[in-house]
Amino acid sequence: MSFFTIQSSSQKSRARAGIIHTLHGHLKTPCFMTVGTKANVKTVSSLQLQEIGVPVVLCNTYHLHLLPGEDLIAEMGGLHGFMHWDKPIFTDSGGYQVFSMGHGSVSEEIKGIRNHPERRSLLKISEDGAVFRSYLDGSQKVITPESSIQIQHKLGADMIAVFDECTPFHVEKTYTRKSMEMTHRWLDRCIAEHKRLNSQQALYGIIQGGVYEDLREISTDYISKSETPGICIGGSLGQTKEQMYEVVDFVSARLPKEKPVHLLGIGDLDDIVRGVAMGMDSFDCVAPTRNARHGRIFSSEIPNKKMQITNAAFRHDTTPLDKNCDCRVCQNYSKSYIHYLFRAKEALGMQLCSYHNISFLTRFMERIRESVLEGRFEAEFLNA
Amino acid sequence: MSFFTIQSSSQKSRARAGIIHTLHGHLKTPCFMTVGTKANVKTVSSLQLQEIGVPVVLCNTYHLHLLPGEDLIAEMGGLHGFMHWDKPIFTDSGGYQVFSMGHGSVSEEIKGIRNHPERRSLLKISEDGAVFRSYLDGSQKVITPESSIQIQHKLGADMIAVFDECTPFHVEKTYTRKSMEMTHRWLDRCIAEHKRLNSQQALYGIIQGGVYEDLREISTDYISKSETPGICIGGSLGQTKEQMYEVVDFVSARLPKEKPVHLLGIGDLDDIVRGVAMGMDSFDCVAPTRNARHGRIFSSEIPNKKMQITNAAFRHDTTPLDKNCDCRVCQNYSKSYIHYLFRAKEALGMQLCSYHNISFLTRFMERIRESVLEGRFEAEFLNA
Repeated sequence: MSFFTIQSSSQKSRARAGIIHTLHGHLKTPCFMTVGTKANVKTVSSLQLQEIGVPVVLCNTYHLHLLPGEDLIAEMGGLHGFMHWDKPIFTDSGGYQVFSMGHGSVSEEIKGIRNHPERRSLLKISEDGAVFRSYLDGSQKVITPESSIQIQHKLGADMIAVFDECTPFHVEKTYTRKSMEMTHRWLDRCIAEHKRLNSQQALYGIIQGGVYEDLREISTDYISKSETPGICIGGSLGQTKEQMYEVVDFVSARLPKEKPVHLLGIGDLDDIVRGVAMGMDSFDCVAPTRNARHGRIFSSEIPNKKMQITNAAFRHDTTPLDKNCDCRVCQNYSKSYIHYLFRAKEALGMQLCSYHNISFLTRFMERIRESVLEGRFEAEFLNA
Repeated sequence: MSFFTIQSSSQKSRARAGIIHTLHGHLKTPCFMTVGTKANVKTVSSLQLQEIGVPVVLCNTYHLHLLPGEDLIAEMGGLHGFMHWDKPIFTDSGGYQVFSMGHGSVSEEIKGIRNHPERRSLLKISEDGAVFRSYLDGSQKVITPESSIQIQHKLGADMIAVFDECTPFHVEKTYTRKSMEMTHRWLDRCIAEHKRLNSQQALYGIIQGGVYEDLREISTDYISKSETPGICIGGSLGQTKEQMYEVVDFVSARLPKEKPVHLLGIGDLDDIVRGVAMGMDSFDCVAPTRNARHGRIFSSEIPNKKMQITNAAFRHDTTPLDKNCDCRVCQNYSKSYIHYLFRAKEALGMQLCSYHNISFLTRFMERIRESVLEGRFEAEFLNA
């Protein structure tokens, strides 16, 4: 069976609905990968994710390599056994974390993380790989394309990513080009290592090239022609949403249709809609859970922004976080109660909001997928 | 219908099994009241408590009076509506918190809390009531016997407690006696206020008297003869477990059989067993949840102490927290995974351990109750 089956392609945009065939079942696309960086989705158990209907989780190679280590996880039956999760898992390669912390700015650009304690840990980048310090104990660590694949092999996710250098926006074009070329050589080394291990995991290449069309063109073609069954769009996508849309649109127009495409680290609702229209099949982002922990709620009641549940306006509000949501939190708890839990600094508030935000995004992706299958995606989501 | 029905009384000890008839259904005794101080059991939702089979929750009048305030909770349908919990709720009167924080030592004695930021907030104790500072904003607050009953009436629990002065161990007998006598006068004022409000809530009197037999005798008789349908044993129970057992044994021998007796703030497994043998019908303690948040686990695998899940010994342990436990955490997660979550400082670890500890204690109480009903409590629990 092929890795990816397209069920329906829109006539009005590049949107498509499909199925990724993984070692842990069929993954319907477009989909959102809930981020479980350190082998858990913060404050939400895998049993709760299952209850919500989350189809896939994305974990982080860099963090799991440092703690608890891939050997322990392999011993525990891989990430699936360790986390007790029997649906698909994606692991990113660790490239983003190694380099964003080293360069100290790609994080800020792409994800708005500031003053991260793990920053400036990158010691050396060479053709061989990256040398960095563990943020846990300061010990020196090395990740190479080969070791990244080995680590991910032990972690045992269904979908894994090649090791890449993730260059920030502010570096010069010359550096971006050199880095991209090295990432391409690393891709080939990753593929070779993947073959040597005889791994059944689905490998995703990562397109780099920053915001430069000529570089993105080279990288898109290089990754597309490789043997990887999946493709990620990574690296700096610019400083504004419009610039990101331009880069993604430019890249996606050149992509082969038969491979599933993952847009790394993007998860705002409007970005997801635009991404689907440009042919993206999957997304991941810490937005649902990170926002939840700060009391920022996805709700159809205010479609274009997040609801700040800590606002005094919700103190007496007996309605659920989202009156149109059928999740267990919205069926059982009021805005007033959750507002109070945040005021009282009770951790349960974070759990309830995380549960809801993940549910909201899961249902949102299901509605997008249905609309693509039924030919009404653009009318319902793009022109709304 | 009477408030309390005894189903079975042991011939070999004062143990009994019964049913407390509340406004939210029948509560089978002996039982443990899971502590949800601030209208939530820390890290565990009321839906999860329901899943576990928790029969009753105990909330705290003092904390809820300060935040969010009893008026808001009344507006939201009382504690049951606010927390979304339709089984029985008990509220303590706030006396313990007001005075323990003021005296600054009863906490340490009874519950092992040290250097509490809320300490020394008591400004004045008089016949009228207690004046203290809110730990939230420093504002001056007053709780009197009447206002405690009014607050608890608005909170809407099924079982409520009279306002008492909870004297620490270290005060002199003269003070303990005077305080006890005032607590008795406060009892009468609480009963009067309860009648004035025409409240259907079941009021519990609280026996004081410290570690002094003559005072405990006076207080036991005073509370027993009052109109309250339930009785709590409160105040300082001494510095050692043996002293506590002596005090409780002395008091319980004098108690009327027809009223349910609650032993305030006690929750170690051995204390519960001894308490049941002395005729106690219910218990409450933060032990299951507070221990869980520090990775200390109740497990039948080490019956006489708690399992410290953060110990390195559990790093590779694929077995559940308790191989004899049927809770959802033990059915799905390994010691290794939970050990890792604590090491990685992931809050999910606290949630999973809290869920398990509450489940463990719920099942423990169910087994005690069954053994009393079947006449094998002493053989199974006391002589084990």
